Amino acid sequence: MTYCCGLLVHDGLVMIADTRTNAGLDNVSTFRKLHVFERLGERVMGLASAGNLSISQSVVSLLAEGIENSETGERETLIDAPTMFQGAQRIGKAIRLVHSLYATGLEQSNLTFDVSFLLGGQISGSKLELYMIYAAGNCIRCTVDTPYLQIGEHKYGKPILDRACNFSTDLYDGLKISLISMDSTMRSNLGVGMPIDVLMMRRDALKAELNYRIEPGEPYFHDLRERWSAALRAAHMAIPRPPYGVPKS
Amino acid sequence: MTYCCGLLVHDGLVMIADTRTNAGLDNVSTFRKLHVFERLGERVMGLASAGNLSISQSVVSLLAEGIENSETGERETLIDAPTMFQGAQRIGKAIRLVHSLYATGLEQSNLTFDVSFLLGGQISGSKLELYMIYAAGNCIRCTVDTPYLQIGEHKYGKPILDRACNFSTDLYDGLKISLISMDSTMRSNLGVGMPIDVLMMRRDALKAELNYRIEPGEPYFHDLRERWSAALRAAHMAIPRPPYGVPKS
Repeated sequence: MTYCCGLLVHDGLVMIADTRTNAGLDNVSTFRKLHVFERLGERVMGLASAGNLSISQSVVSLLAEGIENSETGERETLIDAPTMFQGAQRIGKAIRLVHSLYATGLEQSNLTFDVSFLLGGQISGSKLELYMIYAAGNCIRCTVDTPYLQIGEHKYGKPILDRACNFSTDLYDGLKISLISMDSTMRSNLGVGMPIDVLMMRRDALKAELNYRIEPGEPYFHDLRERWSAALRAAHMAIPRPPYGVPKS
Repeated sequence: MTYCCGLLVHDGLVMIADTRTNAGLDNVSTFRKLHVFERLGERVMGLASAGNLSISQSVVSLLAEGIENSETGERETLIDAPTMFQGAQRIGKAIRLVHSLYATGLEQSNLTFDVSFLLGGQISGSKLELYMIYAAGNCIRCTVDTPYLQIGEHKYGKPILDRACNFSTDLYDGLKISLISMDSTMRSNLGVGMPIDVLMMRRDALKAELNYRIEPGEPYFHDLRERWSAALRAAHMAIPRPPYGVPKS
């Protein structure tokens, strides 16, 4: 399992991803799922993946090697994409190429072709954008109405995003809320686990302001988890008890 | 979609269920999913259902009419079950009977045989218990380690249960936490909606202390939703911003 989240606010973009992979519950490993592509001052991109690791790794490898464009004969890589939208389309193309190679074999092993990506970033001269790319190769773009996209185990961490985030949320507050969302997910699904990779970029800076791995026991995140638990307990304690019926001692 | 939750604490049992059903997003209705069976001072049971409405209704009807026991020739109803465990087993039996009638037809319509139940309550002379019954007819019983069981859209509302509940939680606090859990679910899944049915029974009272429907606009629940939203915002605001990287203005 996996949880990745991208948050696109006025000031910039936050992307976070866990690193746990598992082939069954008895085979748990750590793999990086958040990849950063950067040419300082020219472009910065984050690519987060969820789903079958063999598929997502193959897609990332194809995007690094480049896929030949049958019309132009050029090899198209992700880092060279002219726009973020074309980058998202290249990811979709790579997914379908991997699909053509492995989908039948996976099906014969009773496995579904399960993969999805978040692509966030900015290329000089165009806007900071965030995309989600599906297994079918299609994609959606994040807009101001709902300033986040999630892949993987998205449900546990969604309530806090729905309540606490909007497009005007401060970038560091956005990072903090993303970490709370990750904490809620890790707490309820053992398939999502530490360390956590974080990428943050300020709008128009064209570089990563933060490209950081939060390791187990890291003091700030540990403190955040403790504070959030305590605050939730305090929050529900502060709400009056239901007035329904007649309580008996 | 559906969300039902049962919370079994030292003082008693809370069961809540939403009432929204939908056949596609364009066909939304209200149906009671929480049924109460009571013989004052002798027994009280709550039965909550999730999944395909035609299946769950058929199961409830069978349990009301009774299923003939081929060994004894007796018609076995839910309300007459000698113990809660046997009640859970009768539900399982009814599920498999409905399965034998409709599973093939459902499959031919590309529908899965999807149903699950929560059965909670107490029968004079035995303990207050809570069971979850699966589509296969098997069941699990709630224990003190994790004092709740959920069916339907369980993920959004699980984090608050995991953090705020334990076996010693006060009964009315348990109801309050269940309502927060329901609120989180409704907020993130439109397939879960008002009104909400609530059943509460105190241990050994052998009657419902509360059997109540929360209608849209009901003042306490409205206030709870507002307070919870405000408290979550305040809670994340009170956590310091991440110290990673160097913030720029």
